[in-house]
Amino acid sequence: MNIISYPARETWDSLCRRPAFDHTDLDNVVASVFQKVKNEGDKALFELSEKYDGAVFKNLRVPGSAIESAIKSVPTDLREAISIAGDNIAKFHRAQLFDEDVVETTPGVKCWRKKVAIDSVGLYIPGGTAPLFSTVLMLAIPAAIAGCRRVIICTPPDRNGNVNPLILYAAHYAGVNELYRVGGAQAIAAMVFGTETIPKVDKIFGPGNQYVTRAKEMAQLEGTPIDMPAGPSEVLVIAGSDADPSFVAADLLSQAEHGSDSQVILLSDNNDLLESAMKETEKQARQLPRKNIALMSLENSRFILLRTLDECMEFSNIYAPEHLIISTSDPHLLADKVRNAGSVFIGRYSCESAGDYASGTNHTLPTGGFAKSMGGVSAESFVKKITFQEISGMGMKSIGPAIEKMADAELLQGHKNAVTLRLKTLKNG
Amino acid sequence: MNIISYPARETWDSLCRRPAFDHTDLDNVVASVFQKVKNEGDKALFELSEKYDGAVFKNLRVPGSAIESAIKSVPTDLREAISIAGDNIAKFHRAQLFDEDVVETTPGVKCWRKKVAIDSVGLYIPGGTAPLFSTVLMLAIPAAIAGCRRVIICTPPDRNGNVNPLILYAAHYAGVNELYRVGGAQAIAAMVFGTETIPKVDKIFGPGNQYVTRAKEMAQLEGTPIDMPAGPSEVLVIAGSDADPSFVAADLLSQAEHGSDSQVILLSDNNDLLESAMKETEKQARQLPRKNIALMSLENSRFILLRTLDECMEFSNIYAPEHLIISTSDPHLLADKVRNAGSVFIGRYSCESAGDYASGTNHTLPTGGFAKSMGGVSAESFVKKITFQEISGMGMKSIGPAIEKMADAELLQGHKNAVTLRLKTLKNG
Repeated sequence: MNIISYPARETWDSLCRRPAFDHTDLDNVVASVFQKVKNEGDKALFELSEKYDGAVFKNLRVPGSAIESAIKSVPTDLREAISIAGDNIAKFHRAQLFDEDVVETTPGVKCWRKKVAIDSVGLYIPGGTAPLFSTVLMLAIPAAIAGCRRVIICTPPDRNGNVNPLILYAAHYAGVNELYRVGGAQAIAAMVFGTETIPKVDKIFGPGNQYVTRAKEMAQLEGTPIDMPAGPSEVLVIAGSDADPSFVAADLLSQAEHGSDSQVILLSDNNDLLESAMKETEKQARQLPRKNIALMSLENSRFILLRTLDECMEFSNIYAPEHLIISTSDPHLLADKVRNAGSVFIGRYSCESAGDYASGTNHTLPTGGFAKSMGGVSAESFVKKITFQEISGMGMKSIGPAIEKMADAELLQGHKNAVTLRLKTLKNG
Repeated sequence: MNIISYPARETWDSLCRRPAFDHTDLDNVVASVFQKVKNEGDKALFELSEKYDGAVFKNLRVPGSAIESAIKSVPTDLREAISIAGDNIAKFHRAQLFDEDVVETTPGVKCWRKKVAIDSVGLYIPGGTAPLFSTVLMLAIPAAIAGCRRVIICTPPDRNGNVNPLILYAAHYAGVNELYRVGGAQAIAAMVFGTETIPKVDKIFGPGNQYVTRAKEMAQLEGTPIDMPAGPSEVLVIAGSDADPSFVAADLLSQAEHGSDSQVILLSDNNDLLESAMKETEKQARQLPRKNIALMSLENSRFILLRTLDECMEFSNIYAPEHLIISTSDPHLLADKVRNAGSVFIGRYSCESAGDYASGTNHTLPTGGFAKSMGGVSAESFVKKITFQEISGMGMKSIGPAIEKMADAELLQGHKNAVTLRLKTLKNG
């Protein structure tokens, strides 16, 4: 780790660049998994689970008995914690689904949008070393609030074919009891094509490793939409001279420990802060159980000294971070200038892990620069907005002639005729 | 054309199926165009324009002089029509961008979302036989309302290298003056990778032929989001016994004339209505300039008799039409039951062409069953919703312990530490 001081503007683009990634091998693996699952259904899932997860079991669906014993196994204090987080997530996401007004664009021409739940959704929850049950809450609670009729979860089994009890408990807490033990690209394929056991769904959500992510991207080519493409996690911190270096270090590390490919950037207008934050980061890193991962990730990290805090925000808007932490004496001044970011944390007590777990915001957020064009998962991700219009005779008289002229100019006589016939009856009536 | 009477439930899925489509050849063409444009930039665009559009010209950008003479060439009555449509589109889309409330999920924990315009967007406008200037309005007006800083249009030139003056006028009307004369998959590639002349954009919008559509889908794999995958256009009409057969026929034909692959479905609980609508459709079709296209499309159309209007709505929800017209004596009764549709037209005067041009709703809508999971283009399509959170010391004291427990259970010590450090200073303070 070293500090990059006052980099020239021309270098900012390259400082903001994410590591390039060749998808060719990935694409071939995913394509062959898709083909196999499409052709062979459940049989393919059993084979691929044995091959990739080393797991042999009889039923894809997690039995009710496993869910029941998982519920019993979760200690009370953790249940309470999940309940606090769940309440806040529900409050924030419920507020996103208000009714919109009817707009009368012209007297007699009423237009409106209605939010209607997507019927069936599939949630992918990663397995692996850390059981990410918080992601269950972040996806299943908004799905329930939206009113999705069928919510399924796919998650990889361990070598014994079991699913982590915390994932089962969180699913139960959020009202999902249809879980399948299947992971990787084969889980995505199952939800795209459907198998004997696993239903084809209308939309797929959730994070995963590079195979899962690429499989989700390729799901779109097969006609199944996804929440968003999800790459390695990122945080960018803008720290002023009075930021607490130990807080800043902890925030950088809570990102770095996610994976060795996590992206960590610290910007400041103050060199002393950068130096002390760097020292703190090295110190705290050595105390983490996942220190090897964190240290590898920190090797790609960037500590950058810029001339002003406004310059820091300009840099951040070019980078478009998944998480942006603003720890300055007047953070709102900068927050108002955010143009590209997934989720913004304002002030010294707003740490990323608050948003990861319990403040109420969603932690499924755009990475890799996608924050330039899309926001994170919300209750809206589980609905579609259908437009409605109702036009009275008076309304048709008002806008009909304009429609006729435009259709005529587009050489679409049939479009014009649908109006002309109506206008005729209105003149006669 | 013939009437399908009371089809058994088991056959509904197959009646709702869209024509299957092999993408292999398409994928190869698009992939090679992407590669060429990525490697050769503008040079590739000139070559491909000559190859596919037969057009040779010097500058990709449409010159200001062409826009100026286009403005002068549009007759007053058409300008007025565009202005009526534009006003209504602006009114409806402006209403979609209200501010959301701050939600205090726990005392001291404030969360909110802010809509921020996507910086740069690219709009694709098809050329071909009919100059679809209405699509310019449907995309450029919401982009302006959202506040996108840079809006560009790509549209194919004619054999002389010119762009249709109505497209230029509509762009000028909607505030876009950066137009490039390039079409097909090469236009999409230019906006994905950027060339010497054409900028890489943050998101691509707009309809097109099968090459353009597939190129947009593949743009997603290159990291550029799109509005939606757009296939052949569709209408489903539910007509009651008292619907006007000539209106119904005109509505079916205003869809059928779009292309020979357009999908047209009429459902009713009344056989007489179906028969008279069919006769009217055949009669009106013969009078259309685009009758060959309309008649080809009608060959794939379906006139289906079902037992009740409720059954018609159930069928429609399985089909998930792009456009749904409800022409029954009590249309709201059915409209309340819509679960899957792009845009719904209620009552005898609400014809699809109203929504295509001038009522105010957007005509860029999900096709091919995507209405199950997504809505049409709106002003929201041109913004991202960024989440913000601000947590006070009190707020951190309330939710901090829950975060610590959950992070601990997920084995993410760094996440926990970011909270523990803050709680410590709060206890000392």
